[in-house]
Amino acid sequence: MFSTMQDVPLTVARMLRHGSTIHATSTVTTWTGDPAAPHRRTFAEIGRRSAQLAHALRDELGVTPRSVVGTLMWNNAEHVEAYCALPAMGAVLHTLNLRLPAHQLRYVIQHADDRVIIVNGSVLPLLAPLLPGLDRVEHIVVSGPGDLSLLAGARARVHAYEELIAGRPTTYDWPQLDERDPAALCYTSGTTGDPKGTVYSHRSIHLHAMQVNMAESMAFTAGDTSLALVPMFHVLSWGMPHAALLSGFNLLLPDRFLQPGHIADMIATERPCHAAAVPTLFQGLLHELAERPRDVSALTTVTIGGSACPEPLMRALDERHGIRVAHAWGMTETSPLGTTSQPPPGLTPEEEWPYRLSQGRFPAGVEARLIGPDGTEMPWDGSSAGELEVRGPWIAGGYWAGAGSTEPERPADRFSPDGWLRTGDVGTITPDGYLRLTDRAKDVIKSGGEWISSVELEGLLMGHPSVREAAVVAVPDERWGERPLACVVPADGEADYAALRDHLGEKLARWQLPEHWTTIEEVPRTSVGKYDKKVLRARYAEGGLTVTTLVPDPRQ
Amino acid sequence: MFSTMQDVPLTVARMLRHGSTIHATSTVTTWTGDPAAPHRRTFAEIGRRSAQLAHALRDELGVTPRSVVGTLMWNNAEHVEAYCALPAMGAVLHTLNLRLPAHQLRYVIQHADDRVIIVNGSVLPLLAPLLPGLDRVEHIVVSGPGDLSLLAGARARVHAYEELIAGRPTTYDWPQLDERDPAALCYTSGTTGDPKGTVYSHRSIHLHAMQVNMAESMAFTAGDTSLALVPMFHVLSWGMPHAALLSGFNLLLPDRFLQPGHIADMIATERPCHAAAVPTLFQGLLHELAERPRDVSALTTVTIGGSACPEPLMRALDERHGIRVAHAWGMTETSPLGTTSQPPPGLTPEEEWPYRLSQGRFPAGVEARLIGPDGTEMPWDGSSAGELEVRGPWIAGGYWAGAGSTEPERPADRFSPDGWLRTGDVGTITPDGYLRLTDRAKDVIKSGGEWISSVELEGLLMGHPSVREAAVVAVPDERWGERPLACVVPADGEADYAALRDHLGEKLARWQLPEHWTTIEEVPRTSVGKYDKKVLRARYAEGGLTVTTLVPDPRQ
Repeated sequence: MFSTMQDVPLTVARMLRHGSTIHATSTVTTWTGDPAAPHRRTFAEIGRRSAQLAHALRDELGVTPRSVVGTLMWNNAEHVEAYCALPAMGAVLHTLNLRLPAHQLRYVIQHADDRVIIVNGSVLPLLAPLLPGLDRVEHIVVSGPGDLSLLAGARARVHAYEELIAGRPTTYDWPQLDERDPAALCYTSGTTGDPKGTVYSHRSIHLHAMQVNMAESMAFTAGDTSLALVPMFHVLSWGMPHAALLSGFNLLLPDRFLQPGHIADMIATERPCHAAAVPTLFQGLLHELAERPRDVSALTTVTIGGSACPEPLMRALDERHGIRVAHAWGMTETSPLGTTSQPPPGLTPEEEWPYRLSQGRFPAGVEARLIGPDGTEMPWDGSSAGELEVRGPWIAGGYWAGAGSTEPERPADRFSPDGWLRTGDVGTITPDGYLRLTDRAKDVIKSGGEWISSVELEGLLMGHPSVREAAVVAVPDERWGERPLACVVPADGEADYAALRDHLGEKLARWQLPEHWTTIEEVPRTSVGKYDKKVLRARYAEGGLTVTTLVPDPRQ
Repeated sequence: MFSTMQDVPLTVARMLRHGSTIHATSTVTTWTGDPAAPHRRTFAEIGRRSAQLAHALRDELGVTPRSVVGTLMWNNAEHVEAYCALPAMGAVLHTLNLRLPAHQLRYVIQHADDRVIIVNGSVLPLLAPLLPGLDRVEHIVVSGPGDLSLLAGARARVHAYEELIAGRPTTYDWPQLDERDPAALCYTSGTTGDPKGTVYSHRSIHLHAMQVNMAESMAFTAGDTSLALVPMFHVLSWGMPHAALLSGFNLLLPDRFLQPGHIADMIATERPCHAAAVPTLFQGLLHELAERPRDVSALTTVTIGGSACPEPLMRALDERHGIRVAHAWGMTETSPLGTTSQPPPGLTPEEEWPYRLSQGRFPAGVEARLIGPDGTEMPWDGSSAGELEVRGPWIAGGYWAGAGSTEPERPADRFSPDGWLRTGDVGTITPDGYLRLTDRAKDVIKSGGEWISSVELEGLLMGHPSVREAAVVAVPDERWGERPLACVVPADGEADYAALRDHLGEKLARWQLPEHWTTIEEVPRTSVGKYDKKVLRARYAEGGLTVTTLVPDPRQ
């Protein structure tokens, strides 16, 4: 027996054909800074202009199937056109992260071998200084106004986006592709080492976009409008543009206007029902609305990812503005939808909170397991912690190893021997499948075959009135492998380590309590504001911290 | 460049693993006839029992990968177990339609080469008489109470379901399958010729189940309860059991209790928010509730498929009970989700009606085109009619040609040369993608390169007070190919053909008006109550109708 089903590949061209016909009248709105004059384009127009862009890239710029084309752009309609045209014509969309340090930006352009870069005019000051080191870039396509004189000395040919596509045919005979063909490329912004590239396939993009629209995830339908604040250079904008092609929801895009005042204006005038963003943008919005109120009543749901949303921010959005935050967890390697949090039914609002604060549940496309300190699988009991490993059709199985490679790179610290992605996140899973992340694997303290959560210790320390800030890091220990070192910023005066240790002892087992203590002036942070614990570990290793050890052996 | 995504197949085993862990506490409730004692089983239990069933089938009954196992069962938890275990173990689930005439039931069991049949005890009176002709059936597994003496003379070995699975391991090492492997088999209940088999793949079942859960379709999430009245032997129960594994909604199953009183009791006591059914069941429910009111307030949405829901029934459910009907169109060959109807946003309730009465929009998985009378593609303008052809990953590309075949059958009247499914339905599509079906292709009148809708003529005729019923069929015409013959059942007295023709002329073009008229006593109907126009065409061909021809040439 064999299946009698049609063998139809899941491709971006197919998604574009659907979106630009069935949802012809849905819109992509790009903010211009002027609330009275947003820029609107229908999905039908996006379809026609994507065809024109494909013709221009193929006929004028020599883009062929599997060519990699970089985009250095804000969230706008032209970026959506690149999202559609490049994969549909068989090329690979490489979204370049505007926030990367210059040396990493140059690295990824070279590593991906971008011959063509589409760039917003406003971003030219970022691109121009890099070009001297980028000899293989042949074409630069500039969209929107910008100072073209910045490109005066460039070796690459410079084109204006609108002139380039004008007058070309508005349909394109998209090639027949295999759904496993490469469609898009994103690099991680790894804080250590070179960025690593994840190559999405047509299949992974299509399946992931279906999941975005599923009722348990973002539940989009035609007629909804979503404000996609998540940058289009972050993990394909969490799949939003491709998901919009499937179900026809309207996209509202901020372009470069990410200031709280603009965001509040967008919500008030365009009335999106949904937004997708990292938490900091909504922290800013909350202040903005307190100072200059707007009508944001249309907005009911915000999907927050990138990092966990602090509970006070979640509660404030809920109580002051009726905006419900839904957590999502993911990473570049997971396309990114790994979980979305929707509490189980039948709970009171207060009972829902622990679920809302969790990372949520895995969709069927994402299989999960927790690997404990000894390498075995941990039970889903809500308390046994392990490193999260995931498997699924939109999960990376390796990294792009660069031009000429025939195999992905599979570093052992990122991929298990049986092919699962090691996420580097440590947490627990409840019997009903809710993930609660507690630590990054690199920050967890591995002590005598058990794990001690640095985040839990920090939370408890900061709950003590004498502590302004605290970071806990692992330091080497002959007997136990690692032990926790608590680095405390006192609220004022000197820290009373013994009192703090007793405070922790009220909640934790004896072996979890730090015996090593030090006082610091402030917790060092990364460029994006996260605790930079590797600085503390290095300072400790160099003997740069004055450490007090309270008890010689914590297990006695 | 190549994709770095994991290559994970979309299989039923994967769906079952997800459903029985992440949604371990979701439930399958089977109605027992007693509102106080429904039978409940969690998804975790379904998972364990599916493993037990698989062990029993493999170790005891010799079921191997690609074996076909028939189920002759109502909607109940054991049928869900067969839906899970058979595809997951690599076998093929063949759902047998209880309503098929005996000779067709025997035919499909033989054609599929079922060696094992799982049957509900209550259905044994249907199966027992067939067995003498079914020498290749080796095992009969009986679930639930029934008169086993009916099987006394059977050649096949008889097993009791619960005894067979009891004590076996509750986990199973599901084999690694290709997602294109066969998973399930349904035969059409074609009114002409032998039933035709559609073989679903793991891939088609998984993608279709994702679509069922998408917000634009049935929008299920964990915590929802859906009353699946659509028989599990109809197109895999519209994908409901497999969709439940993905998103964890609860299944409420009627078993054999399909009487309106039982349905009302199920809704009142189990409080489903959704139901899926053919229209007639809800016609019956409406009468039941009028006579014996129940609290059906939990039920807000009913997905109606199989045939269009009459507008008065839709309005009555809405106005009297706050139950909103959503149309879906599909067929065995489309898995079945072909369209679902959700009106565009921003309309008043009255403006929504034309959309609600349409068949709805195609999801991204279903590409559509309309092929007109001359074989060319028709525009989507809401008025140009054509035969609907569809393509997609859950659409059939052929029929199962029987044991030993290596290629599907692709009859030219069902599949276009380029592989699209010819649905046999005729209709229009609006510019925004809403399908309105008007006729079956075999009933449309093909006249001089144009199509005349028999259904439209019938509707207008029945709108005239002198007409009780009317059917319009095509009769051969030398000049035009075909012309309409109006067959009228007068309300009383004799029909005034000229007056009726003038009545039609108020709405239709001259060339669309029937010139041939006859009076009949009643419109012949098929066993399921639809107009049986082939009887009228045959009667005409045999000269059995007295025909009056009003104008010799309708185009002058």
